Amino acid sequence: MTLSSPSENRAGQRGDGAQRGRLVLAEIAEQPAVAERLVSAAQQPASAGGELQRVAAAVRAAAPRMVLLTARGTSDHAALYAKYLVEVQLGLPAGLTSTSTLTVYGAQPDLRGVLWISVSQSGGSPDLVESTAAARRAGALTLAVTNNAASPLAQAAELHLDVLAGPELAVAATKSYTAQLLTLWLLVQAWRGASLEPAAALPSLLATAVAEDDVDAVAARYRFVDRLVLTGRGFSYPTAREAALKLMETSYLSAMAFSAADLMHGPLAMVDADRPVVVVVPEGPGGQALVPVLDALHERGADVCAVAPSGLAPHATVRLALPSGMPEDLAPVVQIVPLQRLAAHMALARGLDPDSPRGLRKVTETR
Amino acid sequence: MTLSSPSENRAGQRGDGAQRGRLVLAEIAEQPAVAERLVSAAQQPASAGGELQRVAAAVRAAAPRMVLLTARGTSDHAALYAKYLVEVQLGLPAGLTSTSTLTVYGAQPDLRGVLWISVSQSGGSPDLVESTAAARRAGALTLAVTNNAASPLAQAAELHLDVLAGPELAVAATKSYTAQLLTLWLLVQAWRGASLEPAAALPSLLATAVAEDDVDAVAARYRFVDRLVLTGRGFSYPTAREAALKLMETSYLSAMAFSAADLMHGPLAMVDADRPVVVVVPEGPGGQALVPVLDALHERGADVCAVAPSGLAPHATVRLALPSGMPEDLAPVVQIVPLQRLAAHMALARGLDPDSPRGLRKVTETR
Repeated sequence: MTLSSPSENRAGQRGDGAQRGRLVLAEIAEQPAVAERLVSAAQQPASAGGELQRVAAAVRAAAPRMVLLTARGTSDHAALYAKYLVEVQLGLPAGLTSTSTLTVYGAQPDLRGVLWISVSQSGGSPDLVESTAAARRAGALTLAVTNNAASPLAQAAELHLDVLAGPELAVAATKSYTAQLLTLWLLVQAWRGASLEPAAALPSLLATAVAEDDVDAVAARYRFVDRLVLTGRGFSYPTAREAALKLMETSYLSAMAFSAADLMHGPLAMVDADRPVVVVVPEGPGGQALVPVLDALHERGADVCAVAPSGLAPHATVRLALPSGMPEDLAPVVQIVPLQRLAAHMALARGLDPDSPRGLRKVTETR
Repeated sequence: MTLSSPSENRAGQRGDGAQRGRLVLAEIAEQPAVAERLVSAAQQPASAGGELQRVAAAVRAAAPRMVLLTARGTSDHAALYAKYLVEVQLGLPAGLTSTSTLTVYGAQPDLRGVLWISVSQSGGSPDLVESTAAARRAGALTLAVTNNAASPLAQAAELHLDVLAGPELAVAATKSYTAQLLTLWLLVQAWRGASLEPAAALPSLLATAVAEDDVDAVAARYRFVDRLVLTGRGFSYPTAREAALKLMETSYLSAMAFSAADLMHGPLAMVDADRPVVVVVPEGPGGQALVPVLDALHERGADVCAVAPSGLAPHATVRLALPSGMPEDLAPVVQIVPLQRLAAHMALARGLDPDSPRGLRKVTETR
């Protein structure tokens, strides 16, 4: 988003009561349909125009030796998720780029053998376009993952994947985020020749998540909270980061996300009974690695909200339910949904409009 | 640090008034001497036992095609700084690893041709030792940068650099951080065959920084602040991150750091007149890239503290002075000093003991 003019700065507190949050709540509710569309498109063979299979084949043929991901804001959390997929499932080294090294400092790296993936909802931020063009000149195979096939970023990259989320109007990104996650998951599976079948359950799991009624109680409990810590480990860490951003954007909270391991290296000192901790606990090794962290938080008397399938994190004070039986690598697509809804409901409870936070516009132009 | 037992949890509020902060303030003051030691050791040729030159020669001979960095907490900020050096000055792709992909998910990446640098003050955290050993088995050239040559991490890696900071006793790392930054800077220069001469001025610049008297006024102004945003761009971004961690650890503040570009993608909504913003502004392209961000903050009426040489960031409300004329890539070694001092003085002003934050120990063991 660009900075708005001063006169717009209070827009977030002004909107018509009946309309506040209309856009973001509608876009959250669209997520099952978006997932359905992506899963169905992914099954189309390249020969029949299937974009995902075509891009996956091109990437497989290039046999990159490493993957660099570049993105900002919400899309950066999707990029972080993809980093885990690449490292764990493809066994390739991966990194998140520091865009400024190319755009501010004019670095001229040798990127032959690198797959460069740029992730952006709008495909419009000049620094992403510029750094992707520079990466392409430096020898990388470039892939843009956007929600707009006509965007400058989609044009700048050699390959493009459309996340098929449809127009997103609320400033806070929701459906485009889960669409990015799922697109990147589908790409990695197609690239490594794994089954896409586990994604078939997503539309119905998302439909359940968008209809869960436990969000209201947590939003009410957190009505007067202004500082919050969020944590996860491995695949669930991007969920904590993205939820923190939603809470910052829509309710102006000091919402701080840490990987559970980093939380132990200092920030834990900050956690007390007045600062609730949201812990995203998946089934699988990442969730198991959170057990000692949950114990430590319990010992300190922290107020813990577990975003977890029932049975996990039994000492949590409050819960946002997740379905059981999701593979851990795919769970982030569903995990974020109760947290998107929490952010929207907390903003509404504070009289704010989550559709148009003060001082932000939909497309941010950074250089 | 490991978690302390509940009986120790209040230690941070208990210490003897005359002694509080004694350790951390003494360690901050040692930084000119540590820099002197590192600069002098770096000039020793490998043939005369010079460790830095020997390691640099080994790395140059291996001609890595990319660099992966792994670290946690304060050391992670030194790793982030090194990532900028590697990308900008060596033109190599670089990434910060997600340790959990190796330790939690058991990924088995192909790391041939990769230089794997692990950064840790203690060299004791099991996940760093384990992931470094795994990286070595996977074909990486491994280098540990620690403050303890006898540590498990130093033993696990093929190469080791001692940051020569001497024993660090305060829980909040200070002198080991600037020693890590300088060690990594010296390594990159020696590796690429650049002059080490710019570092010769550091001891006297650090001596000025540890004696500046402008910290008291800012600490007094922020006495009742509990939420703070810190930002920088490029080389100065790790400074913002590290300063935020110091403030979290020692004063339990909600101190949130963003790269200035990411700040514009959402978190800016949170900034208002009640949430001061600390902006680290170096001379050079990174500082120039901050001008529109400073303008945006000024337009919103934000209370800005500029950590900057005089003449930069003229609209700031308060300032922490930095010397002029430092090359931007080396400036982070000095930039953090006023912020370390600010964190210590803010803790003292709140009746806390920055030497022993509640619930933390010096060596954190995460897995």
